[in-house]
Amino acid sequence: MTRHVAGDTLREFVARALGAAGMTPANAARMADLMTEADLGGQDGHGVFRLPQYIRRIRAGGMVANPEIAVLQDRPATALIDGGNGPGHLVMSRAAEIAIAKARTTGVAWVGARQSNHAGPAFLYARMPLAEGMIGLYVAVGSANHMPPWGGTDLLLSTNPIAVAIPSNQRPPIVLDMATTVAAYGKVKTAADRGETMPVGWMIDRTGAPLTDPARASEGLLLPIGGPKGYGLSLIFGLLAGTLNGAAFGADVVDFNADSASVTNTGHFLIALDVAAFMDPAQFRAAVDDIWAQMKASNRLPGVTDIRLPGERLAECRAERLATGIPLPAPLLDRLDTLAADLGIAPL
Amino acid sequence: MTRHVAGDTLREFVARALGAAGMTPANAARMADLMTEADLGGQDGHGVFRLPQYIRRIRAGGMVANPEIAVLQDRPATALIDGGNGPGHLVMSRAAEIAIAKARTTGVAWVGARQSNHAGPAFLYARMPLAEGMIGLYVAVGSANHMPPWGGTDLLLSTNPIAVAIPSNQRPPIVLDMATTVAAYGKVKTAADRGETMPVGWMIDRTGAPLTDPARASEGLLLPIGGPKGYGLSLIFGLLAGTLNGAAFGADVVDFNADSASVTNTGHFLIALDVAAFMDPAQFRAAVDDIWAQMKASNRLPGVTDIRLPGERLAECRAERLATGIPLPAPLLDRLDTLAADLGIAPL
Repeated sequence: MTRHVAGDTLREFVARALGAAGMTPANAARMADLMTEADLGGQDGHGVFRLPQYIRRIRAGGMVANPEIAVLQDRPATALIDGGNGPGHLVMSRAAEIAIAKARTTGVAWVGARQSNHAGPAFLYARMPLAEGMIGLYVAVGSANHMPPWGGTDLLLSTNPIAVAIPSNQRPPIVLDMATTVAAYGKVKTAADRGETMPVGWMIDRTGAPLTDPARASEGLLLPIGGPKGYGLSLIFGLLAGTLNGAAFGADVVDFNADSASVTNTGHFLIALDVAAFMDPAQFRAAVDDIWAQMKASNRLPGVTDIRLPGERLAECRAERLATGIPLPAPLLDRLDTLAADLGIAPL
Repeated sequence: MTRHVAGDTLREFVARALGAAGMTPANAARMADLMTEADLGGQDGHGVFRLPQYIRRIRAGGMVANPEIAVLQDRPATALIDGGNGPGHLVMSRAAEIAIAKARTTGVAWVGARQSNHAGPAFLYARMPLAEGMIGLYVAVGSANHMPPWGGTDLLLSTNPIAVAIPSNQRPPIVLDMATTVAAYGKVKTAADRGETMPVGWMIDRTGAPLTDPARASEGLLLPIGGPKGYGLSLIFGLLAGTLNGAAFGADVVDFNADSASVTNTGHFLIALDVAAFMDPAQFRAAVDDIWAQMKASNRLPGVTDIRLPGERLAECRAERLATGIPLPAPLLDRLDTLAADLGIAPL
């Protein structure tokens, strides 16, 4: 049975578990807050769902609970940081602090990271500059390769996601968070859990035939959006978030679902762009609201009841889950109970 | 009949025509060079093909031949420029100069432009930072709306393209240049010219049914890559390249194919990112070559003879056309002859 858990309750549990796994209170609180935001925002495969895996990785020596994050390269508007093999949440929080501080003066800043790990949903980091009146843009190398180059069958590319957050006025901020594949691999796993068939277009097998049985996903190849275009985007994002930072990309990417002990050397980057470097921020936010209204007012295709904006579902889901709690399915609750017993902490 | 014209011959003709339309020799040379590069690179719908339209726009007062380009906002790593309603080629060349000069110090620079016009293919500008050992990233608001928001039928969005260029060593640079729609509108027009049917997936009509007759394109809606994802990308790119710069986006976009007299207020932005701010440039270029080799060496789907990299066709096409000339079809040659007669200049 699904149980609805208040955000605060979940946040405290996650912090408790991370603390028991060796994280300092400050690090545990920071990471618990971001993981809870993932769940509040509806990214169910990227929040507390990942907690047992993160703790397994810390215990197996694949990830450092309290990393020393070092600035390796520094220019007025750029930095390259070494995440000390810490959780991506902590590494990219630091990257965001640096990027925002720089962009206040320079107008824009680009901060890359190497020696990091899975950071949860991309929107968390793109959204960080919003509070400062800035636009955020985040790209990551995905934590497992499930896609070949276009026309190929070797798994050399990941879902390499991009997220962009743009401030608005009365409307929710525009927040795009998307994989460069038609379906994120998490959606495949969800379909498998539910015994559902996948739509044609998500995956093919190594003969090029559509693969719709998610139980056979390990034989399959994720398809990029727009065919060669999505392949190109995934490749470019990998070069910028991985190769340029001295982080893993291509054949070097470790499948973090299959292997909890190896260092992943995950790469990401974050751009903070100060709206005030271009125009009056209030005027800009009003203009974003106007674009929002234009899209909403469009005539619609038959059967379509509403035009949606990127970030709208996120805002609705967060409001709803703050009010009624985060729905956690029974199998996940069982895993969290087991984890709590293992760690010797109070359960959720 | 198709005639093959040497790049130098084409460049001189275009410069002659632009000069006769009132451009200074320096401006005409700059624009002719970029337009010829478009043709050399295989972007046949974005090079000399556009010359009669550009000159029509200058004569109709819709575009200024010799614009005064002004810096409106300036920070260490950002600038907003007013293109003085000049050709996008001249405006974004200036933007690239500013971005490259800033990025040499700051590591990255983001330069936006308003009051610009169609600039030809996106790759031209993304490629400009390459010569300085930098990565380039260019985004534009397209010059006509052919796409609705996802689920809608009002034409509020354009093909808003992105181009990214990344330096390599022995291999051609990685150059991605893509519309956020499945097909660029130019491909629809090409299909119409040839009397061909469009594949399902390029366009739908206002009932949501596939539209495959390119002669009916004016009733149709271009489809985004990846459904809502491509819609989201197009929207985000429009907000960043248009709205943030005080340029047209959404309902404000003028269809420059249908209207040569109205000011389009086209917006674009260019990012220059200095590789040396992250790692040794030679080491980076070698790493890009290695990724190139990894993709090439992938096993292939049945029937696939070669894995392609973004920018590979561009490099091959340029080499081939430098050797054997640019193929110009008879109808285009006729239009260029008519233009030459109108301008009182020597024909091509």
